[in-house]
Amino acid sequence: MIIVMQVAASESQIRGVREVIETRSLKALVMPGGERVAIGIPSAIPPEERESLAGQLGALPGVAHVTHVTRPYKLASREFHSADTVVEIGDVRIGGNEVQVMAGPCAVESREQIQASARAVRAAGARVLRGGAFKPRTSPYAFQGLQEEGLELLHDAAREAGLLTVSEVMQPDLVGLVATYVDVLQIGARNMQNYPLLIEAGRSGKPILLKRGPSASLDEFLLAAEYVLHNGNPNVMLCERGVHPLDRAYVRNTLDLNAVPVLKELTHLPVVVDPSHGIGVRRHVPAMAAAAVAAGADALIVEMHPDPARALSDGPQSLSPDELSDLMARLRPLGEAVGRTLHDPAR
Amino acid sequence: MIIVMQVAASESQIRGVREVIETRSLKALVMPGGERVAIGIPSAIPPEERESLAGQLGALPGVAHVTHVTRPYKLASREFHSADTVVEIGDVRIGGNEVQVMAGPCAVESREQIQASARAVRAAGARVLRGGAFKPRTSPYAFQGLQEEGLELLHDAAREAGLLTVSEVMQPDLVGLVATYVDVLQIGARNMQNYPLLIEAGRSGKPILLKRGPSASLDEFLLAAEYVLHNGNPNVMLCERGVHPLDRAYVRNTLDLNAVPVLKELTHLPVVVDPSHGIGVRRHVPAMAAAAVAAGADALIVEMHPDPARALSDGPQSLSPDELSDLMARLRPLGEAVGRTLHDPAR
Amino acid sequence: MIIVMQVAASESQIRGVREVIETRSLKALVMPGGERVAIGIPSAIPPEERESLAGQLGALPGVAHVTHVTRPYKLASREFHSADTVVEIGDVRIGGNEVQVMAGPCAVESREQIQASARAVRAAGARVLRGGAFKPRTSPYAFQGLQEEGLELLHDAAREAGLLTVSEVMQPDLVGLVATYVDVLQIGARNMQNYPLLIEAGRSGKPILLKRGPSASLDEFLLAAEYVLHNGNPNVMLCERGVHPLDRAYVRNTLDLNAVPVLKELTHLPVVVDPSHGIGVRRHVPAMAAAAVAAGADALIVEMHPDPARALSDGPQSLSPDELSDLMARLRPLGEAVGRTLHDPAR
Amino acid sequence: MIIVMQVAASESQIRGVREVIETRSLKALVMPGGERVAIGIPSAIPPEERESLAGQLGALPGVAHVTHVTRPYKLASREFHSADTVVEIGDVRIGGNEVQVMAGPCAVESREQIQASARAVRAAGARVLRGGAFKPRTSPYAFQGLQEEGLELLHDAAREAGLLTVSEVMQPDLVGLVATYVDVLQIGARNMQNYPLLIEAGRSGKPILLKRGPSASLDEFLLAAEYVLHNGNPNVMLCERGVHPLDRAYVRNTLDLNAVPVLKELTHLPVVVDPSHGIGVRRHVPAMAAAAVAAGADALIVEMHPDPARALSDGPQSLSPDELSDLMARLRPLGEAVGRTLHDPAR
Repeated sequence: MIIVMQVAASESQIRGVREVIETRSLKALVMPGGERVAIGIPSAIPPEERESLAGQLGALPGVAHVTHVTRPYKLASREFHSADTVVEIGDVRIGGNEVQVMAGPCAVESREQIQASARAVRAAGARVLRGGAFKPRTSPYAFQGLQEEGLELLHDAAREAGLLTVSEVMQPDLVGLVATYVDVLQIGARNMQNYPLLIEAGRSGKPILLKRGPSASLDEFLLAAEYVLHNGNPNVMLCERGVHPLDRAYVRNTLDLNAVPVLKELTHLPVVVDPSHGIGVRRHVPAMAAAAVAAGADALIVEMHPDPARALSDGPQSLSPDELSDLMARLRPLGEAVGRTLHDPAR
Repeated sequence: MIIVMQVAASESQIRGVREVIETRSLKALVMPGGERVAIGIPSAIPPEERESLAGQLGALPGVAHVTHVTRPYKLASREFHSADTVVEIGDVRIGGNEVQVMAGPCAVESREQIQASARAVRAAGARVLRGGAFKPRTSPYAFQGLQEEGLELLHDAAREAGLLTVSEVMQPDLVGLVATYVDVLQIGARNMQNYPLLIEAGRSGKPILLKRGPSASLDEFLLAAEYVLHNGNPNVMLCERGVHPLDRAYVRNTLDLNAVPVLKELTHLPVVVDPSHGIGVRRHVPAMAAAAVAAGADALIVEMHPDPARALSDGPQSLSPDELSDLMARLRPLGEAVGRTLHDPAR
Repeated sequence: MIIVMQVAASESQIRGVREVIETRSLKALVMPGGERVAIGIPSAIPPEERESLAGQLGALPGVAHVTHVTRPYKLASREFHSADTVVEIGDVRIGGNEVQVMAGPCAVESREQIQASARAVRAAGARVLRGGAFKPRTSPYAFQGLQEEGLELLHDAAREAGLLTVSEVMQPDLVGLVATYVDVLQIGARNMQNYPLLIEAGRSGKPILLKRGPSASLDEFLLAAEYVLHNGNPNVMLCERGVHPLDRAYVRNTLDLNAVPVLKELTHLPVVVDPSHGIGVRRHVPAMAAAAVAAGADALIVEMHPDPARALSDGPQSLSPDELSDLMARLRPLGEAVGRTLHDPAR
Repeated sequence: MIIVMQVAASESQIRGVREVIETRSLKALVMPGGERVAIGIPSAIPPEERESLAGQLGALPGVAHVTHVTRPYKLASREFHSADTVVEIGDVRIGGNEVQVMAGPCAVESREQIQASARAVRAAGARVLRGGAFKPRTSPYAFQGLQEEGLELLHDAAREAGLLTVSEVMQPDLVGLVATYVDVLQIGARNMQNYPLLIEAGRSGKPILLKRGPSASLDEFLLAAEYVLHNGNPNVMLCERGVHPLDRAYVRNTLDLNAVPVLKELTHLPVVVDPSHGIGVRRHVPAMAAAAVAAGADALIVEMHPDPARALSDGPQSLSPDELSDLMARLRPLGEAVGRTLHDPAR
């Protein structure tokens, strides 16, 4: 932590800063500068003191501003855990050399719909079936999902097709229920900072697909992951799904693919990309899926519906079964060009 | 709803759009244009069909884009409820002529701290004591609040001082508990789209202070309020607390005061402003509080701590008791200049 | 400047950083930390070396990141020039106790229009007439302004009414021409980083109204002002006019009033607010003008048209003469409540 | 254009809207809705009337809001020019099947530096040499470029190496000068809405590389291109270079690759991506370059410096010659995987 003093700061104000630091048994290193003084704390500050100390110092007279020199997360950081985390579920590995694809409808709508989805997902070569049962909807008047029945339908359809499942959980008291049906718990973008939910997700021990909030910085995103890790669950996958766009004339979100190489450097956790929400327009999803793989994503999560024009939600961004199949076929040579593989059911 | 066709759309594509509309027993009005055709739906679309219809139409061949001409919320809209909603709690009215001030510490830390806060809040002329017991913290290592004990301390301190209380609830299964202790339930910015929480807040019947999310559009904000209203609770206060800033070199958020006159026109609900989070720097809070009153806010919520330099959270943006008192003294003539009053305990 | 090393940085990498610093005749202060090393430069770095040094250090092996501890502007900073700059033009002082209002149409359209505008501006109590002659328009098909003829009409109308003038200049080779007609040169938001234009504006010696770009940070804004100051012109006024909004459903921009108290602290230059562009909706302009004065603005610039419904540009955000007059009448008591005055022609 | 009336709009207000429309010899189609009336204009509105008409209608009593149903640009639109524009310069085609790479230093610094750059660019297989002579710099204290001497050095080095050139022009009165030295004129992000510059660029007839502004919507971007096209120059390349990021802790900008497929659909103009500014961190540039090609970019513009650690500007985001060579080698199989080619000097 560096405390930068105002140009006109007095000797006694500088002394005041030193005293607060030393009261906490930390060292204070005063750096006289040409125009102003800066004070460094050349020792590790316990994470639970970090914020309160910065707050206290920032409120002292003569202080211009306080700058953190280290990142606020630790368990998520590659600096303290250099090897890639690979989340293993059955024989599916996420974070290894094979780029995984999770696909399926926005919402589970009926047994027929989810079974048809599962068959199409399987045929295309994806290994995880997605499908929402508890749906976060912007409007209270929109379809809210089939709830537990939806989870059961999702589970059954996936098992018949030999697929894993991922579905969203929206409230801490339902983590246990959702976890009994699915292989991966999704925490949605709007809940990225729902801390009671993150804590329960941590305690559940289930693999977690954590989506980035639409205006979350990467530090905030990694701190949300830190909540899960800190509660004992090492199996966290980070999912970039688009940030708030400059305008919505042509897209729903701005897919932030910069986050892929940056996260791969900052953290050991697998990085997933959702091109469907990331652009929000069906015919542009393949281009963004390809870009995500080229940028280094470990997995994709893609919306597909057996009949997009009749989908109860997210139809405009859902691929048809044929489009998913074409996409997978296009991604395989692309993956190869960047040294990755994608599952091919034909082999 | 207006469906704009591509320039090269064919007759049969236009017919396809008409058919989908008419299947839903709605009228389709084809407007031949100079270069392209647009199709209007000149009738009220039930809110629960709005999104799925737009999705379905947007996925049809030949359609360029679909534009909504009406707003997606209804109970929150002033068009269907023209008189101002005034939330009445005891003898305090929020949304009437008197500008109310809610003040207190970010977090309840101890009996002494919250009692001192309550006395200072009372002395300054504010009528509602704020204080967090369940704290949403970006880092899992930061102080998380005293939980139920904090609620009890808040309640006791407020009652002794003759104040009302507001405190945040973060998860749906705790709405009942928090509601037994406080007069106003706060839903934080990070939970603005936590729908299970909004639904419980609606069912509770308690006055709700709903904070705007850091990248929420006003439509998304009003739809979040619509969730509460739709679940039977008319007492919703909308709180602007700053949106994601261009950068954080000097501020924590960008207080969006444009939202004040715009919301006052769009909705009948009271509008509250939080200048403390809205700028995040103690010495600038008074300027922004004054600006909020001038812009037409019905209430302010302000962080104050008996000893900001020792606050466990948000010290850098908390006023001291004297600063709060000075602020109230400055706001009274300002309120008068815009035709409003502020409570004065000296009278 | 602080150079933060990676956790795994080697001794020789730390030595490499020291050498680069010492080659420039600066001191390097190594701070051994608990987990990683940081290196401070405890001396003033000449501004022209600042960026290249940071670039060079950031590219060295073992360096995690480089943090500036001082601000990049100097002439604009209050730390080196503590007294408020007051721009004096004739008997009008901007930056003093009197809050000045500049008003007039977006564009000069005709002699009659600008004369009617001047009379209305004068009658309302504003002292500076605005009016565009060279118009930056998003579309090449929109009205581009009357150019030199417009300047002449503006000048004549203002002189008849006893007003000063402000008008925009868009290209460096026209600074001289525009400066012969007007009292204040405006540099528009889209040109905030048009450096050749800033340099010419600096050389002109004329008072400059510099508008903040729609996504400019305050550091970028102050560095743009620094260009003008550095080229010999001390008379710069900083104008906040709204930043890129979250969405444009109800407003044109997000007026960032946080910038007012923050700029007043960082710099000695006067701060002007443009509520017309800042919200973009005529009926909300008065609320935002009031908020700006309450926040501490030194001046306002407001669009007014004798007949807004017939304006060739910006009609939807232009006040009518009566609305301007009402606004001035409302601002006077408000100004008084915050210790400022506004000109009253009736006295 | 659709005019949506307020719920409570009266018959005479509706008549008022019709009259304004009909006065302009346009048709007004009144659509009675369930709750409110909308009025459509089912005919092509001349582009030069578009904005003033919307302004006038928006200011009428009873009008809730005005919505455009058609896009404001025309020459840039694929709807009126369906075939891809291919910019041909000598034997280099931009917008065809071959993905072109433009590379070189941020700034021309010396004869040796630009010659070494040219050799490295040539060897890697790129065909266009970039190098700034007139540099837009945020700080007046930073290196501003070698100006005309820089252009001459750039030109000579490129001709020796058999390369084309691209360099930025910052002011309209220098378009002629810069055009005598270079093959492609770059208009920088900060000048995207510098209309006098766009007009001169249009008149010059030279191929234009137009960079998107950091907060420009795609409509604003395409309208900037429209200025160039409208002034008689069909050879415009659109360059995405990153938009304002959520924060700058790890990146300089947010590369908006969504813009690639969206622009390819909206317009016939070639789309270029600048991964260097788009992420701003050297070691992440290759990932983003690969993602850009996968997303469908027609060309890349990449910063490379013979010795990045000694670069006078943008060192932290510049590749070394070896890194550029490696990048090109990685992009070739990737291009092939998406059906494109990249030049290979070894063949």
